[in-house]
Amino acid sequence: MEQVKLLGFWYSPFTHRVEWALKLKGVKYEYIEEDRYNKSPLLLESNPVYKKVPVLIHNGKPICDSMVILEYIDETFEGPSILPKDPHDRALSRFWAKFLDDKVVKVVNAFLGKGEEQEKGKEEVCEMLKILDNELKDKTFFVANKFGYADIVANLVGLWLGVFQEGSGVELVTSEKFPNFCGWRDEYVNCSQVKEYLPPRNDLLAFFQIFTRAQAAASASTKK
Amino acid sequence: MEQVKLLGFWYSPFTHRVEWALKLKGVKYEYIEEDRYNKSPLLLESNPVYKKVPVLIHNGKPICDSMVILEYIDETFEGPSILPKDPHDRALSRFWAKFLDDKVVKVVNAFLGKGEEQEKGKEEVCEMLKILDNELKDKTFFVANKFGYADIVANLVGLWLGVFQEGSGVELVTSEKFPNFCGWRDEYVNCSQVKEYLPPRNDLLAFFQIFTRAQAAASASTKK
Repeated sequence: MEQVKLLGFWYSPFTHRVEWALKLKGVKYEYIEEDRYNKSPLLLESNPVYKKVPVLIHNGKPICDSMVILEYIDETFEGPSILPKDPHDRALSRFWAKFLDDKVVKVVNAFLGKGEEQEKGKEEVCEMLKILDNELKDKTFFVANKFGYADIVANLVGLWLGVFQEGSGVELVTSEKFPNFCGWRDEYVNCSQVKEYLPPRNDLLAFFQIFTRAQAAASASTKK
Repeated sequence: MEQVKLLGFWYSPFTHRVEWALKLKGVKYEYIEEDRYNKSPLLLESNPVYKKVPVLIHNGKPICDSMVILEYIDETFEGPSILPKDPHDRALSRFWAKFLDDKVVKVVNAFLGKGEEQEKGKEEVCEMLKILDNELKDKTFFVANKFGYADIVANLVGLWLGVFQEGSGVELVTSEKFPNFCGWRDEYVNCSQVKEYLPPRNDLLAFFQIFTRAQAAASASTKK
């Protein structure tokens, strides 16, 4: 019998990418919530290089990194495809997924960074949004008009970006500046493949506020 | 008839990743050398997001980003597989390829950065080498004892890292500190799948020295 375990954080977009893919495929799995301040021996053994969630453990074998796990799920389990069938569409999906994944640090810096790092992060996020705004004109999904790989990876900008913005008061995304992106985002969070899988926005917002206060307090106590 | 064009720089490890994959598959292609200071309209139109090489153009359709191109080549053309067949081995290949690709900026900073950025880059490269040294113990190839995806992506650390080191005088890799990595590297550059595809080391070294001098001169003239 198949044994599928997922180690994650409930508030992590990376963990949710994997959950969405498993749910899309209809794979039954055991979800194990990790504690970021006290990671389990199972997590540390399963991902010795990064020591990070998400980790998928399939029949005892760990697979690490959300992007790698999504491809693994698509290749291993029956059910609707995550990547399209056409090789050029697959390449486009991987291109946009990688583009979005590469921007994670910049998004985090824009909202959680300090001083110069934050200013640079904000500029880079605005550049990213300009590119996405151009790409998403009249589009509901990234590739071939079908929900898939790049859309799953886009959860960071589809939901979390708005939460970070509201929680931090740093306003980068406005419908005046990025009308196509905002149109896409509003459809994205309401489309059937996403809506039922989203974590509660208010819980994420509350977590973001507690987390940033804890970070600020830790930073202040280090400086004393 | 298939039409395959590759836009690249002769000295770029990313371009060589794609050339190695095409050669491994036995795909005939037209190579077009780009000028980094005067990029062709074809490059700018084909990769509007990054405006970077390599770009593969297959029957008129562009594919960008070396990692995405390698997967595309493997899925599109006949010939020896680049990724292994087993899903877990495929995941391992993608994990190590992504690990190596994510470290590119750190490698560049370690040898071409200035001041604090360079110091941080050196530390990060040493951390990367420690992880690779541990992984490559008694290994000739990254996954399943067969040359493939991760090995192709490893060309940056297999050849270019040594060129950067010699050209800059910054010595990070020694066989005392990283014996397994150095053992792997020495076998890597001599293995049949790599040896015949390598660009001449002396040409790369000469290019690196001219390039870094030009960068330094440009930086000095900006400061005047």
